Amino acid sequence: MSGTRVDLGLLDPLTTSAAAALVGDAAYLSAMIEVEAALIGAFVDIEVAPADAEVDADVLAADVDLGAIALAARGGGNPVIPLVAALRSSTPEASAPWLHRGATSQDILDSAAMLVASRAAAAISVDLRGVVRALIELADEHRHTPMAGRTLSQQAAPTTFGLRAASWLDAVLSAQLDLDTTAWRLPAQLAGSVGTGTVLADAARGPEQAEQLRMEFAERLGLVHRTAGWHTDRTIIVELGSALALAVGTLGRIGLDVALLSRTEIGELSEGLAAGEGGSSAMPQKRNPVASVLLSAAARRTPGLLGTLAGSLLAEDDRPVGAWHAEWPTLRELLRIGLGAAAAARALTENLLVDATRMRENLELTGGALHAERATEILTRHLGRARAGKLIKQALDSDDDFQVALPALLASGGPELADPELADAVRAALTFEPGPVGLSDIIIDASIARAGALA
Amino acid sequence: MSGTRVDLGLLDPLTTSAAAALVGDAAYLSAMIEVEAALIGAFVDIEVAPADAEVDADVLAADVDLGAIALAARGGGNPVIPLVAALRSSTPEASAPWLHRGATSQDILDSAAMLVASRAAAAISVDLRGVVRALIELADEHRHTPMAGRTLSQQAAPTTFGLRAASWLDAVLSAQLDLDTTAWRLPAQLAGSVGTGTVLADAARGPEQAEQLRMEFAERLGLVHRTAGWHTDRTIIVELGSALALAVGTLGRIGLDVALLSRTEIGELSEGLAAGEGGSSAMPQKRNPVASVLLSAAARRTPGLLGTLAGSLLAEDDRPVGAWHAEWPTLRELLRIGLGAAAAARALTENLLVDATRMRENLELTGGALHAERATEILTRHLGRARAGKLIKQALDSDDDFQVALPALLASGGPELADPELADAVRAALTFEPGPVGLSDIIIDASIARAGALA
Amino acid sequence: MSGTRVDLGLLDPLTTSAAAALVGDAAYLSAMIEVEAALIGAFVDIEVAPADAEVDADVLAADVDLGAIALAARGGGNPVIPLVAALRSSTPEASAPWLHRGATSQDILDSAAMLVASRAAAAISVDLRGVVRALIELADEHRHTPMAGRTLSQQAAPTTFGLRAASWLDAVLSAQLDLDTTAWRLPAQLAGSVGTGTVLADAARGPEQAEQLRMEFAERLGLVHRTAGWHTDRTIIVELGSALALAVGTLGRIGLDVALLSRTEIGELSEGLAAGEGGSSAMPQKRNPVASVLLSAAARRTPGLLGTLAGSLLAEDDRPVGAWHAEWPTLRELLRIGLGAAAAARALTENLLVDATRMRENLELTGGALHAERATEILTRHLGRARAGKLIKQALDSDDDFQVALPALLASGGPELADPELADAVRAALTFEPGPVGLSDIIIDASIARAGALA
Amino acid sequence: MSGTRVDLGLLDPLTTSAAAALVGDAAYLSAMIEVEAALIGAFVDIEVAPADAEVDADVLAADVDLGAIALAARGGGNPVIPLVAALRSSTPEASAPWLHRGATSQDILDSAAMLVASRAAAAISVDLRGVVRALIELADEHRHTPMAGRTLSQQAAPTTFGLRAASWLDAVLSAQLDLDTTAWRLPAQLAGSVGTGTVLADAARGPEQAEQLRMEFAERLGLVHRTAGWHTDRTIIVELGSALALAVGTLGRIGLDVALLSRTEIGELSEGLAAGEGGSSAMPQKRNPVASVLLSAAARRTPGLLGTLAGSLLAEDDRPVGAWHAEWPTLRELLRIGLGAAAAARALTENLLVDATRMRENLELTGGALHAERATEILTRHLGRARAGKLIKQALDSDDDFQVALPALLASGGPELADPELADAVRAALTFEPGPVGLSDIIIDASIARAGALA
Repeated sequence: MSGTRVDLGLLDPLTTSAAAALVGDAAYLSAMIEVEAALIGAFVDIEVAPADAEVDADVLAADVDLGAIALAARGGGNPVIPLVAALRSSTPEASAPWLHRGATSQDILDSAAMLVASRAAAAISVDLRGVVRALIELADEHRHTPMAGRTLSQQAAPTTFGLRAASWLDAVLSAQLDLDTTAWRLPAQLAGSVGTGTVLADAARGPEQAEQLRMEFAERLGLVHRTAGWHTDRTIIVELGSALALAVGTLGRIGLDVALLSRTEIGELSEGLAAGEGGSSAMPQKRNPVASVLLSAAARRTPGLLGTLAGSLLAEDDRPVGAWHAEWPTLRELLRIGLGAAAAARALTENLLVDATRMRENLELTGGALHAERATEILTRHLGRARAGKLIKQALDSDDDFQVALPALLASGGPELADPELADAVRAALTFEPGPVGLSDIIIDASIARAGALA
Repeated sequence: MSGTRVDLGLLDPLTTSAAAALVGDAAYLSAMIEVEAALIGAFVDIEVAPADAEVDADVLAADVDLGAIALAARGGGNPVIPLVAALRSSTPEASAPWLHRGATSQDILDSAAMLVASRAAAAISVDLRGVVRALIELADEHRHTPMAGRTLSQQAAPTTFGLRAASWLDAVLSAQLDLDTTAWRLPAQLAGSVGTGTVLADAARGPEQAEQLRMEFAERLGLVHRTAGWHTDRTIIVELGSALALAVGTLGRIGLDVALLSRTEIGELSEGLAAGEGGSSAMPQKRNPVASVLLSAAARRTPGLLGTLAGSLLAEDDRPVGAWHAEWPTLRELLRIGLGAAAAARALTENLLVDATRMRENLELTGGALHAERATEILTRHLGRARAGKLIKQALDSDDDFQVALPALLASGGPELADPELADAVRAALTFEPGPVGLSDIIIDASIARAGALA
Repeated sequence: MSGTRVDLGLLDPLTTSAAAALVGDAAYLSAMIEVEAALIGAFVDIEVAPADAEVDADVLAADVDLGAIALAARGGGNPVIPLVAALRSSTPEASAPWLHRGATSQDILDSAAMLVASRAAAAISVDLRGVVRALIELADEHRHTPMAGRTLSQQAAPTTFGLRAASWLDAVLSAQLDLDTTAWRLPAQLAGSVGTGTVLADAARGPEQAEQLRMEFAERLGLVHRTAGWHTDRTIIVELGSALALAVGTLGRIGLDVALLSRTEIGELSEGLAAGEGGSSAMPQKRNPVASVLLSAAARRTPGLLGTLAGSLLAEDDRPVGAWHAEWPTLRELLRIGLGAAAAARALTENLLVDATRMRENLELTGGALHAERATEILTRHLGRARAGKLIKQALDSDDDFQVALPALLASGGPELADPELADAVRAALTFEPGPVGLSDIIIDASIARAGALA
Repeated sequence: MSGTRVDLGLLDPLTTSAAAALVGDAAYLSAMIEVEAALIGAFVDIEVAPADAEVDADVLAADVDLGAIALAARGGGNPVIPLVAALRSSTPEASAPWLHRGATSQDILDSAAMLVASRAAAAISVDLRGVVRALIELADEHRHTPMAGRTLSQQAAPTTFGLRAASWLDAVLSAQLDLDTTAWRLPAQLAGSVGTGTVLADAARGPEQAEQLRMEFAERLGLVHRTAGWHTDRTIIVELGSALALAVGTLGRIGLDVALLSRTEIGELSEGLAAGEGGSSAMPQKRNPVASVLLSAAARRTPGLLGTLAGSLLAEDDRPVGAWHAEWPTLRELLRIGLGAAAAARALTENLLVDATRMRENLELTGGALHAERATEILTRHLGRARAGKLIKQALDSDDDFQVALPALLASGGPELADPELADAVRAALTFEPGPVGLSDIIIDASIARAGALA
């Protein structure tokens, strides 16, 4: 085994083999051959090539050896050059004249990359929809499950777990929308060596016919036709990278939240681990939140990769020195991470275990101090800001729990404090009973409705 | 002067003071105060606060000292805490009860950042439209100006400068569309300490009223209302960052192209420098393409900044430990760079000098070898691929220029090569005369039409 | 105030004004003037200029206006060009002929940046030494304070807080070593317009004299002399950036750990907040770990900035189009963040509050399951791996706490399990009493000793 | 082929298969097994395990299937867990008790990564030495070959190609020094589940013996022993990543320079392409600087990857949620790019073609204006700054070439200008004859001497 360059995913436990295969070398090679076949077919479509020139990609692919192409890619700096050389021998005679006609390496590789990206994005989107469904369920089921809201690492004020799930949901919806709308716009590339389509126009017998050919080419590939070539306008690559980073970051946030809330001392959430998952090589008692860990890791890798794509906007001339080449493995890696993250997040959210009892216990750890902000509001309305603030401070500084100290202070205060309406309002506020909190139902409903609208 | 932390742009020659002021500390402070005023006003709008509670931001701002706020921001880790404390004294009595009511620091800072971003994006967009106009003119005027297409640093095949300008144009249009559609979606933030709006609901006398108040608040700020708070869903920040990086990268590409094409040995383009621009501290003869240099520099800085924003998607709990804070200066810097780049690119494109004569001279440097691809196509149609390839190789390897060698080879070949139709076609192809190249007119027209559609 | 570009640190609560001033615009301007003065002085040193040409930087600086220079920097794309123009008028007649003689803008700006960096690095180093002292104390004092070791968010096995502090210490020592050794190597730049030193050689009356002058120049600035100019060899900038990112990341890790361990449910650490620190604009009970939050934020910003510097290694020709310019604000920001982070980490570690009781309580949360790995080892020695594993699993699966279940299982097992030596070993292992754990004392002592060696 | 996740380098034409194999999945798997064998051996070394426990890594590896391990890595989130399970069956009975004893997954994976890194770094270093030798030769041979120095894209002043090669050389030396000194410090990892080495101490019969075992373990692996574990102190990873990014960036700069200087219109350098290299899929005449292109691409990818490593400094607790996992593929990719870049740069520099004639022709393009800075210096010495500046400007603005205009102006000026010494000096300066320029010989010699000192 040693001595080969084969990568099988040993260092990428996130992405399953099946998902990774969508963006593997073989997938790219297949896509390149599909693109070459589509070009031949497009010449048929515009009736420049005879009908029998049409050729199936599988026929073209018959004798192509991935390893040999990969090896030979070095000579010209890209895999298309040796691929076209290899295809010369496998292309049927009737198709041969139209092989790679008018195209440049970048046309083939860019179109193939978009084909691969389009399929990967579709697979990611399917899993994102699964995440969405799971989160709708969690948001709805736990809309009234009280949980401590936490800011800057500290318990802050009560919230519900449903609201948290709705916040995840809303973010995933945005990410999915971004990814889908980007994926729908992925363009074919066919502009010739310097983007003028000169040889295409010659071969197609005129610029208008060439433009028609380009449309057929895109249509055959299920990609969008853009009149302007984009050899050096890499907008779509950055948009796609950004959408992927957004999706992975959004899912990573869920992982990070789950990992935090499943800390031993918090224990509010836990991954529904299958047998054999979450174990340790050393500690027999360990149940690690593996999916959460891997999602967090994924989200830490995407920003740098996105940065590389954004850097490649600096693409000079009609094909740049390196900017284009730097995109290839970078975009592929983003797609691979995206595939892994979406599947992992789906499994995570579909099997997430929620411990409402621990949530309630944790809420009560600080003796009701979490209600201080709301109590201030209530007292302020009755007593004004200054006096309210003073009373709250007194209650917080008391040796008793806030929940005990504040009513006691009110009871022992003068007649104004003894206002029964105030006492009722304070009592009603100092509770951790299940129920909506503030606008939580409105927000949860809105996110669920948005999911419905986007579905 | 020494001993102060004041930054005046010494290390940022790209952004003018006026543009930088749009996103400077003072702009952020003003925006925060506007946000606080809008919150008070929104209480009036829902008729919870009396009409005379309404207060102008300028009134609130009267006694606020930027330096003191900046200094005090350290204590609580953000500038809103000392700002609210300072506003307590400047707020008129009628308004005082509603000051910061139900809000959390992040509501104020996020809304203010969106306000600042929205204004900066509008200013960038104005300059991008200027770039678009200038590029339309360049693309149209030079649609038939022949220029060498270049790939991987080498002259490759003929193109026109108009097509290059159209390619820049198309990319700028995409960037502008991205930025505008993102800017239109910038949301207000008002969700309270843990995103539940609990105190807002209390203060507004019910969740529905609180939701109404949030709409009024957004409306007053000219920002979008989103029911879901986004304290930890940072999608929009990444989208905005991505749009800015896209714009700056796209403009940087223009700068890079201009710098390359204005190299002493190429000389096809030059910046229309004003008096006092482009000089050197050492070399009296230098005319440096300053705007191009600064645009390239700008585009090298944005990917890392975008990466930081994407990293902050990992925002845990209801307010994260650091992810949020890391966004502030990063987004601001992206906005500042965007402002500088758009203005510089506008000046660059509006004053770009095109030297069609040098373009033509450079085209002819290789004795017509740039036509080899097209000549291959023409010969192939008459003679088949193998024979065409052989003849072209022979002509390229000849001691004569390709432009001379190929016709000579054809003339001296057998009767088949002497085909007058072929000779005509080859002669027509081996020219650098002004005119459209391949699909160039179709592509240029499409990009110009797209500009019209987006205007 | 509105309408100006002045930045005073409103969005950077981490860095104090005093620290920020070390790297502010005024500091850069001063440094540039010092560099120009040093160049004049170096001409005196090699006895080409008369002694009375020597001029103090303060004299040169007298009439220089930062705002005007910043404004004028746009024309030539860097601030040195207008600075030299301004200095022409303030330079005494005897010095005037030697002003900027033989230098290029980049010589001045690069040398000034190194001067600023060298001073900032020294200040950072002072604070890092403070951190080191505080961590030595924490590591030593708490070397036997038991704490739960945690991996992948879950309690895993016992450790001590002293060991954690020692791990922080060891990392800070590495970071400090990196920063110091890099800072000692910061070079002066003086190589002339294209790195040949041609005019220097003319002005100094020969290449050897020019080389001598360059040495004197570096010596005057307290920077290292390198014979090779480094206009386009940006190694040292990346090394410096890497050292800063390392320092900030290392301190950020401390912040992240403190924030986690001060979570409400964990409560093992807390920041020793001064009055007025850690408050919230909404929640009166909040005590936020502000320094930890800001340290984490700092460490999230440095990777992207470091990436920008690494990207600028691609510096073409003898002065590149943009790569150099992109470094200026990026390096400055890294220095500013480093200054802020070092000071904040010092305050944090010097005032850190350790709650050994909470550590102990948390350790006991899982009924001794944290000892499962160690118990496996002990049982394995007596009973072999298979049987040990089985017993441990049984104890972990029992309804009783592991700490109770395992001895019970041993006691109720056959004669082999009743081995008193085994029972003793197990009993000894199943404890959370204060004391060293594994190699903890050896590791703590080694880290403290390393601190001594590096001091 | 389709449907598998196998990557063979199709999208990475830079790295040869042989080089890539050094860091491929198989290499990592082998290294992990070597690490497990070393641990067993270290128990023998300290005489806790019997001599016949010693086992060869090849024996352990016999039945281990890479694909199966990669597949199973998902369950526990890392490949060590299934690997240890697999090794249980292949380990000889005498060795079995010591397999993975006291270790945690991270010990194995980190040590294996360092082993892989150490071998890759050694291979990179060999190629860097090849680059150094080639550059010494180029610097020496062309020390007096005149070439235009260029700044900000414009010809600026004369230099020599030897000086450029020396500048590359000096940078490569720095990069190599960085990489070598980092590689020498790569540490073994063996600290147990939470970094305390508790089970190691038990198994080794005491902390001192465990420390001894750790030393033997590191020694067997040829790695450095560090007393402090580094599960969450990732300094060395960032240092290694930084050294790799530095090396790749430095080599990328050479590639970028070569690509620029081999532009059709400049033609001063070209890659010595082998048959079959540099071709195009479309343009028969093309000779692309493939190595330069791929080197530039490599250098564009490293900053983002380095950023990811720097981000992983934020590693909380005793094993972080994701930060560690994000390092694996990132470091590997940096190593792979480093291997490819070093080999490509070696081939590039060893075969670089220098066209001194084109250099000379290009130098003369601007009629001697490149000498304006130096002429100013010479005139200033005789006539003072103001008058010199005026004359130079006059000469630059003249219709004649500067080289003609300046002597003419001097000749036609008054008696002062007719000073024969001045005329001689100007004539001597206005030349492009081969020879040293300024300090070029001193700098070239210093860089070559440094190479000798480091060799």
